[in-house]
Amino acid sequence: MASIKPSLAKGTRDFTPVEMEKRNHIYNTLKTIFKKYGYSEIQTPSFENLSTLTGKYGDEGDKLIFKILNSGDYLSKAPEKLLEEKNSVALISSISEKALRYDLTVPFARYVVMHQNEISLPFKRFQIQPVWRADRPQRGRYREFYQCDVDVVGSDSLLNEAEFILIYHEALTKLGLKDFNIKLNNRKILSGIAEVVGKPELIVDMTVAIDKLDKIGLDGVNKELLERGFTEADLSALQPIIELRGTNLEKLASLKQVLAGSTIGLKGINEIETVFEYLRKLGQAQLLENEVELDITLARGLNYYTGCIFEVKTNEVQMGSIGGGGRYDDLTGMFGLKDLTGVGVSFGADRIFDVLEELNLFPPSNAERTKVLIVNFDTALEEFTLPLLYQLRQAGIAAELYPAAVKLKKQMSYADSKQIPYVLLIGDEEVSSGQLSLKNMDSGEQEKLNVAALIAKLS
Amino acid sequence: MASIKPSLAKGTRDFTPVEMEKRNHIYNTLKTIFKKYGYSEIQTPSFENLSTLTGKYGDEGDKLIFKILNSGDYLSKAPEKLLEEKNSVALISSISEKALRYDLTVPFARYVVMHQNEISLPFKRFQIQPVWRADRPQRGRYREFYQCDVDVVGSDSLLNEAEFILIYHEALTKLGLKDFNIKLNNRKILSGIAEVVGKPELIVDMTVAIDKLDKIGLDGVNKELLERGFTEADLSALQPIIELRGTNLEKLASLKQVLAGSTIGLKGINEIETVFEYLRKLGQAQLLENEVELDITLARGLNYYTGCIFEVKTNEVQMGSIGGGGRYDDLTGMFGLKDLTGVGVSFGADRIFDVLEELNLFPPSNAERTKVLIVNFDTALEEFTLPLLYQLRQAGIAAELYPAAVKLKKQMSYADSKQIPYVLLIGDEEVSSGQLSLKNMDSGEQEKLNVAALIAKLS
Repeated sequence: MASIKPSLAKGTRDFTPVEMEKRNHIYNTLKTIFKKYGYSEIQTPSFENLSTLTGKYGDEGDKLIFKILNSGDYLSKAPEKLLEEKNSVALISSISEKALRYDLTVPFARYVVMHQNEISLPFKRFQIQPVWRADRPQRGRYREFYQCDVDVVGSDSLLNEAEFILIYHEALTKLGLKDFNIKLNNRKILSGIAEVVGKPELIVDMTVAIDKLDKIGLDGVNKELLERGFTEADLSALQPIIELRGTNLEKLASLKQVLAGSTIGLKGINEIETVFEYLRKLGQAQLLENEVELDITLARGLNYYTGCIFEVKTNEVQMGSIGGGGRYDDLTGMFGLKDLTGVGVSFGADRIFDVLEELNLFPPSNAERTKVLIVNFDTALEEFTLPLLYQLRQAGIAAELYPAAVKLKKQMSYADSKQIPYVLLIGDEEVSSGQLSLKNMDSGEQEKLNVAALIAKLS
Repeated sequence: MASIKPSLAKGTRDFTPVEMEKRNHIYNTLKTIFKKYGYSEIQTPSFENLSTLTGKYGDEGDKLIFKILNSGDYLSKAPEKLLEEKNSVALISSISEKALRYDLTVPFARYVVMHQNEISLPFKRFQIQPVWRADRPQRGRYREFYQCDVDVVGSDSLLNEAEFILIYHEALTKLGLKDFNIKLNNRKILSGIAEVVGKPELIVDMTVAIDKLDKIGLDGVNKELLERGFTEADLSALQPIIELRGTNLEKLASLKQVLAGSTIGLKGINEIETVFEYLRKLGQAQLLENEVELDITLARGLNYYTGCIFEVKTNEVQMGSIGGGGRYDDLTGMFGLKDLTGVGVSFGADRIFDVLEELNLFPPSNAERTKVLIVNFDTALEEFTLPLLYQLRQAGIAAELYPAAVKLKKQMSYADSKQIPYVLLIGDEEVSSGQLSLKNMDSGEQEKLNVAALIAKLS
């Protein structure tokens, strides 16, 4: 076969051993916490029937779904007319019946519906798997990336929302982050505001404008609101909302006045208060002072969230949100199972990776790599080094014998490049004395040890 | 959007929490052992450029590669002629430039070539990821399945081969298997036999026929060999090979006589002897008595293996091979990096799963699930139960409070279906006495404990 110069498909990445160690550090930290809160892992297939995915992500989303070409003579049933017209869009359903997972939420909804007779509600699951999107790749945006989702369906208790705040707090703290905000909003509050000003269709415009308060000041925001279709009368109704400041409790008090006439708005405020109350009962009221922040400009996922909305940002590094989520009252309706409420959050593993890297928060080394390399001075010594190698591994120590008696320099550079912390130098003298020379690759120090002491030291 | 009845794409599977626990048990066992032998994890993208994959798996393999349709107006550059002809095969390269990973070996070769300046040889890696094949699904055969590969490139030492035998032995033993065979052959021995009888093109026919010795007897094998193109003269030359019996050492002795005139054949025998010698030095000679078996009918991967060939079979369950591999002298040549030798083995995780299931070898329970459910009798009790819930989790205990005060029966059936081992029953009496009722879901026994004793018991 002809030799070709290999390359990666656009927007995809290899993960080297060092990167995998770091990624596993993130995944394992998250998994441990998810399990502690009663969430169980599931996995769904990488591809789904195309009909399962289309129509769930909007027209733009549909375009970004990777379709898989049917196997065999895929054109045999394709309508001649569409081929003649070169009608790419209309032809898809004739030549492709499968597509790569675009997110973890729709496959999860399918899972719940298909397994409804075997699962016990509330069903609490987490899922850490790659998803694929035909986006234009750019710095920090890939066509294959991992999502870490944790969701519960079948429980309307706001304890779930409070626990997601704790999960975010515990996970990010455990990963070493010190200054981050878990922003909270409620779709019903936004609906209430829309009701009060009578402009439901302008909710997104409103939140976009208000969000700029720090940058463009009050006059700027008012000007932008007018440009976006609000009237002077709307503006005066909106003033307490635009200037919403202070502690979470102060904000709630102001909102209550503004939304006094809106049943749904008050319901939203009550939901937020209940979440805060759960945090207090859990002994975590201190999170409300700084870390958790009521932010009514948070309009993430407005199309599908029906209750609380979450978004997490770090203040230590310039970076978009590193997590988010919310409650959707009808997750599984798209597959015919009505009235099953769900709430969930997601961790942006790739962004968290970048944040930890920038802040140098990855542990300096962990259990994932070889602990000791036995230098191979002479294959004749293998009668001694191989039983030792076996003994080390029996003791659970990750160990290697360099597989050939090449120059010492080459063997040391192998240990260096694999960041192996210890090297064992065993020559004739060591064999006869039983005192082995162990070199610490970090400090350069060397010490003599017998086998028992060596195993104790490396264990 | 219209509601549709959801289904899985053909040949794919969901993994439930219970299945994920079991799969993770297998993966974690393998990973721990791979690392102990100095192998590091890497991952490669799910899709590769189509040109990276085509031509590597033979014509049949190429047909089984899942191709991904180009995004956007994918027909715009498609030749009209091919569309008119409905030429599915020729059109592929115009409308698809990416394809799903078919195995882990070709992406690994690509990885090595692309990262050659940053990796230090020998490069020892393992990789556990799904692969996709457009096979016709059937019992035990899926279109998405996991491969667990462990390979080293850049070392021709036969110590690597010996260590793979130990890795198989240790991994399968650790998973609970008691009776399995690690079969070993060497491509050079097969080449030697072909040289001796002068029929290199009939090697596969020969091994297929000889493999039937137990079923059809010596006369049957001889008859089949004649049908497959061997002559009476070939048969007499082949008799010692057909009737090869006895211990591994006896087999080697017979082969040495038959292959005395073949340089390559003797080289193959020498390689096997060296592997056995390494096992002896490692203190594992006893594996040669029963578990490791020289089997010259083993012709797996004859197209690409150049040295040792491995295959693993369990004798406890009716099942095809649960692992295999071998040495390939020119792994990366397909991508222009010549003369880099590699050797590796693979574990069939899906088949191992089925074997462990059939033999009931999965651990009865492990750390992956919720340890205790606090029953929710009355939301008024949450002032007591929520701080307790927080305290349990702080102690690292996976715990849940049922999120609503529904009927006890429903809460108990939730605990049952999640196989939660303990349930905490906390009513007014327990709150005032501080003595909590803990029910063992398995035995039905109930005991009274204070918080400290509870945490000690569940930790």
